[in-house]
Amino acid sequence: MAVTNRDMANAVRALSMDAVEAAKSGHVGLPLGMADAATVLFRKFLKFDPADPNWADRDRFVLSAGHGSMLIYSLLHLTGYKSVSRDDIRNFRQLGAKTPGHPENFVTPGVETTTGPLGQGIATAVGMAMAERHLNARFGDDLVDHHTYVIAGDGCLMEGISQEAITLAGHLKLNKLIVLFDDNSVTIDGGTDLSDNTDQCARFEASGWITKKVDGHDEKSVEAALTWAKKQKKPVMLAVKTIIGYGAPKIAGTGKAHGGPYGAEEIAGIRENIGWKYPPFEVPAAIEKAWAKAGERSKKEHEAWNKRLAGSEHKGEFNAAMTGRLPKNIAKAIIKHKKAVVAGGEKKATRQWSGAALEVLTHLVPEMIGGSADLTGSNNTKTSHTDPITPKNWAGRYVHYGVREHGMAAAMNGMALHGGILPYSGTFLVFADYSRGAIRLGALMGTRVVHVMTHDSIGLGEDGPTHQPVEHVASLRAMPNMLVFRPADGVETAECWELAIANETGPSVMALTRQGVAPARTTHTDDNLSAKGAYVLSDCKGKAQATILATGSEVEIALAAQEMLAEDGIAARVVSCPCLELFEQQHGNYRKSVLGSAPRVAVEAGVRFGWDRWIGEDGGFVGMSSFGASAPYTDLYKKFGITVQAVAAEVKKRIA
Amino acid sequence: MAVTNRDMANAVRALSMDAVEAAKSGHVGLPLGMADAATVLFRKFLKFDPADPNWADRDRFVLSAGHGSMLIYSLLHLTGYKSVSRDDIRNFRQLGAKTPGHPENFVTPGVETTTGPLGQGIATAVGMAMAERHLNARFGDDLVDHHTYVIAGDGCLMEGISQEAITLAGHLKLNKLIVLFDDNSVTIDGGTDLSDNTDQCARFEASGWITKKVDGHDEKSVEAALTWAKKQKKPVMLAVKTIIGYGAPKIAGTGKAHGGPYGAEEIAGIRENIGWKYPPFEVPAAIEKAWAKAGERSKKEHEAWNKRLAGSEHKGEFNAAMTGRLPKNIAKAIIKHKKAVVAGGEKKATRQWSGAALEVLTHLVPEMIGGSADLTGSNNTKTSHTDPITPKNWAGRYVHYGVREHGMAAAMNGMALHGGILPYSGTFLVFADYSRGAIRLGALMGTRVVHVMTHDSIGLGEDGPTHQPVEHVASLRAMPNMLVFRPADGVETAECWELAIANETGPSVMALTRQGVAPARTTHTDDNLSAKGAYVLSDCKGKAQATILATGSEVEIALAAQEMLAEDGIAARVVSCPCLELFEQQHGNYRKSVLGSAPRVAVEAGVRFGWDRWIGEDGGFVGMSSFGASAPYTDLYKKFGITVQAVAAEVKKRIA
Repeated sequence: MAVTNRDMANAVRALSMDAVEAAKSGHVGLPLGMADAATVLFRKFLKFDPADPNWADRDRFVLSAGHGSMLIYSLLHLTGYKSVSRDDIRNFRQLGAKTPGHPENFVTPGVETTTGPLGQGIATAVGMAMAERHLNARFGDDLVDHHTYVIAGDGCLMEGISQEAITLAGHLKLNKLIVLFDDNSVTIDGGTDLSDNTDQCARFEASGWITKKVDGHDEKSVEAALTWAKKQKKPVMLAVKTIIGYGAPKIAGTGKAHGGPYGAEEIAGIRENIGWKYPPFEVPAAIEKAWAKAGERSKKEHEAWNKRLAGSEHKGEFNAAMTGRLPKNIAKAIIKHKKAVVAGGEKKATRQWSGAALEVLTHLVPEMIGGSADLTGSNNTKTSHTDPITPKNWAGRYVHYGVREHGMAAAMNGMALHGGILPYSGTFLVFADYSRGAIRLGALMGTRVVHVMTHDSIGLGEDGPTHQPVEHVASLRAMPNMLVFRPADGVETAECWELAIANETGPSVMALTRQGVAPARTTHTDDNLSAKGAYVLSDCKGKAQATILATGSEVEIALAAQEMLAEDGIAARVVSCPCLELFEQQHGNYRKSVLGSAPRVAVEAGVRFGWDRWIGEDGGFVGMSSFGASAPYTDLYKKFGITVQAVAAEVKKRIA
Repeated sequence: MAVTNRDMANAVRALSMDAVEAAKSGHVGLPLGMADAATVLFRKFLKFDPADPNWADRDRFVLSAGHGSMLIYSLLHLTGYKSVSRDDIRNFRQLGAKTPGHPENFVTPGVETTTGPLGQGIATAVGMAMAERHLNARFGDDLVDHHTYVIAGDGCLMEGISQEAITLAGHLKLNKLIVLFDDNSVTIDGGTDLSDNTDQCARFEASGWITKKVDGHDEKSVEAALTWAKKQKKPVMLAVKTIIGYGAPKIAGTGKAHGGPYGAEEIAGIRENIGWKYPPFEVPAAIEKAWAKAGERSKKEHEAWNKRLAGSEHKGEFNAAMTGRLPKNIAKAIIKHKKAVVAGGEKKATRQWSGAALEVLTHLVPEMIGGSADLTGSNNTKTSHTDPITPKNWAGRYVHYGVREHGMAAAMNGMALHGGILPYSGTFLVFADYSRGAIRLGALMGTRVVHVMTHDSIGLGEDGPTHQPVEHVASLRAMPNMLVFRPADGVETAECWELAIANETGPSVMALTRQGVAPARTTHTDDNLSAKGAYVLSDCKGKAQATILATGSEVEIALAAQEMLAEDGIAARVVSCPCLELFEQQHGNYRKSVLGSAPRVAVEAGVRFGWDRWIGEDGGFVGMSSFGASAPYTDLYKKFGITVQAVAAEVKKRIA
């Protein structure tokens, strides 16, 4: 008997449903519905080599509808990825298995990105497709020439982030991006018509995509559409009509088929309906063999690519880029830059100092690709080394992301995951709230991306409380696996940038001022003093009677308070804290030596929340306890009492 | 000389540009471009009475492109709102003026909602239009029958939230919603073609809107379009083609015209080009008079409405709804419900207890309108008193928001701002990250909305770290003017709901478990013990050697630890902390009496961030310090060490 596409798809269906039943949770509706189409994709189109999940020029496959994770686990397992064993499938959603509830790239080789929060996958895939186009322009067809495929569900397309992704991809004419929309007309609450009437094809076309409707249960229809899609000059969306929970006698095609174990009766019914006569977790040898063969389809192509790389003049550069190795001369360049900053002694906004540091770094690191969500001039993210990326100039290194903070953050994740790119981008700090979903996913995945976030406090002034971050630095510090930098001046900004791009295992945030700040560091040190997160910036003579902790624009206030206190004969030490996460990582002895044993007062133009860790319950805090207001920033600092006098008073209170 | 629409529009232009020049910041590009169209709207269509900005049946006008705030300030001032004086316009963006950088409804009567973060306005307006339809169904055409108008910019339409708003409005056939898209083809970075190619009309039509292209500088074209728009049976988007910075000789129509003061030369050029011969901040009497007349246009309609209300059988009910007065019998009903919960002694998830409390409350409070972002069954937000709202059943009280967390939160703000509705809705807590932009705006505006956020920790189990909040409770607690509730059992859940709906001046978050929790409150009290935010749930015999603080599902662990410690002869007190913001508001003596002076240990299945405020730098904390994992929740609590033993050990460490 010849093994058909349907037979192979049924193996995916069977493993998926058996796994969900065993786990007593999970979502089998999508794997049952999309099995036929995904089988065509993996059998005939996707370029991949299970023996080398990191092959740089593989096609990327993103299951944006991450709840259908058993689809991808079944496919990885059947095509021969070692990362997913039959036991992993048996242990779906159990502690330690390579088969978590939603696909996690840091757990399961072969999974390209972590999905589950809807819409993130498609937006991340846009970043992958952008990375491919840029690296293609940099290294040529020989080394970089692949597609990015996405399976997205109704939920993905209802999330706002999908619109940002779709419009960006359409604008950039990402012709190697192919989205298979699992058009099953069902969400958790019921039929999509409970909450949506969007004509998705028309919507995509409105933003420069090409679309086609496809019968997702007809192998030929899917194959013809994918063949056609690869020839288009624009991104393609295939509306793949499927029946969710395909085969389930009672619930197929309904909201009930979305998730949860179906129960023995329905499962038996599916087995009957799809003609699957085998016990749970068993796949007949002929079908296993057909799948193994599918997994070997691109082997020769991979070997040819290996040869091309071995013979390429770009080999060294390409490998450096793909492994994310930074040039060794960065440290020296930063030292040189810091010297010039100290010598200049200028008062500038840290966003401007960030622009200056980027001018140095983007010159040295060709992998750095910048951008901004339509605030280029304000974020100072564009340098002379970064020409705009356009559909006609993929060699550019600057993305005009448009007013799309969430899509931007997700695209950065995608570029970092693709490899070969070190993305950074800019917006106002307050709009971290818009992009937080993608920032978090970056922290979870450990993507090296840098979020430049300027206008970082009431110091932005007239734009008022809608634009003034108050709780944002705190809320970002609360997130695991992320470094939040808030440098005080030009020197610290350069140091923090050096640390941010060296932070290979997670995102970094650069919180930067709109307003000018006086130099805090007036003598040069080769050492990166920010590397320990906090350090004694200005010690006092004799034993400190108080320690003043400050970050960013408030370091200036702390230093002035120190001086004012000195005039009253009070000895206070000033500690600058550009990155409290790094400080937390230091040895306790170092932390104690910096903090001292005197009473502590912190000053930061944000909320106290989180600061008690460093100043204690009885410590003093000068900052915000409400939203801000619209006025020139000097008026606001007075109005909200973030002043030299206030800091000095808090110190005095504690040493009386 | 007869005063023309153009003359009146030029007054708006002049005041706007003079104000921005004086403030040396702000955005005059939009007011210059949209002045003609907005003048037509305010002169001939908008139903409003400057003498009574709170007239319940006024049309709502939302300037979604909030940076163009001088447009609305000029219009409010010229039409006769007392809230905006000429001096306020002279003091644009200065401390204490009624003219902040972006429109703030809590500062300036006549401003319907706070805008600035792009896309929020259009999404909030959808909520207003929903409120209008529902209240129309409840109270009839006599009392509720108005339009909602929006001016939105390119930036608003690029934000993902706009897609959620547009698709929701299209689905609901909100025919009384009319969006004027300021189609000026420019954003801050330059032409929109730098980052977007979307055919906005096609995009809106794909989701059930009707659209028309309009010449924004042709009074007749705008008037005809608005007349036509009011007759449609679907929401209408008018693509109003304008020239940004209209009149500016050098920069009109370019990215430079978006914001910032234009400088004396350009301003003089505009005066010349539009034929405005008057000094800064001066408007000729004839034009002032024409505007004053426009402001009085709806007076008669307002008087007629007043009469209809005075004679209406619904008068009492309508006024109660619009003022947000809650029925007095709530307290009794909650007490009765709490008694039954205690008597039942059941172990249930707090999301289930929330559903039970909602069953009581939605019965008593007809203003409560529920919903969920496609997680109805999981969020337990639907009750027997809340039928779904559909385009054919506006009397319903439950919104299937679709997978649109951000649009949902903004729509709730809009309903609350409209008045007559007390909205609540549900999603998973982790997706607070998706809706945070709108949650924050609600906190800033002080809207009474309740965000039900279930699956509030690793306790959700198998779905894994993408779905497990770890830092979310902390990040929400960091936000000013919001109450974050995390109740421990059925009694606390009922108490927290009582507090949440009584919280008239800001949003509340209900963080609720997926998993079952044992009753913490085993004896009934009439008093709402959660009202003080934290209280002694279980005291020890004799002097406490330690205080254990806990919230939500971890209260159970704290109580078991107390017992375990007692067996070792250690006296520990357990404090339940369902709302730390309320606890913070209590008198210091109460706080001290609850916390005691013994060493403290807190247990919460989230990050420590923020807890040092309550346990001190040396306090013990049992919780999370990383992202979670995918497994059954009992395995996860063990893996991450959130156990009775761990709490007991932290206590012992501190009393050794």
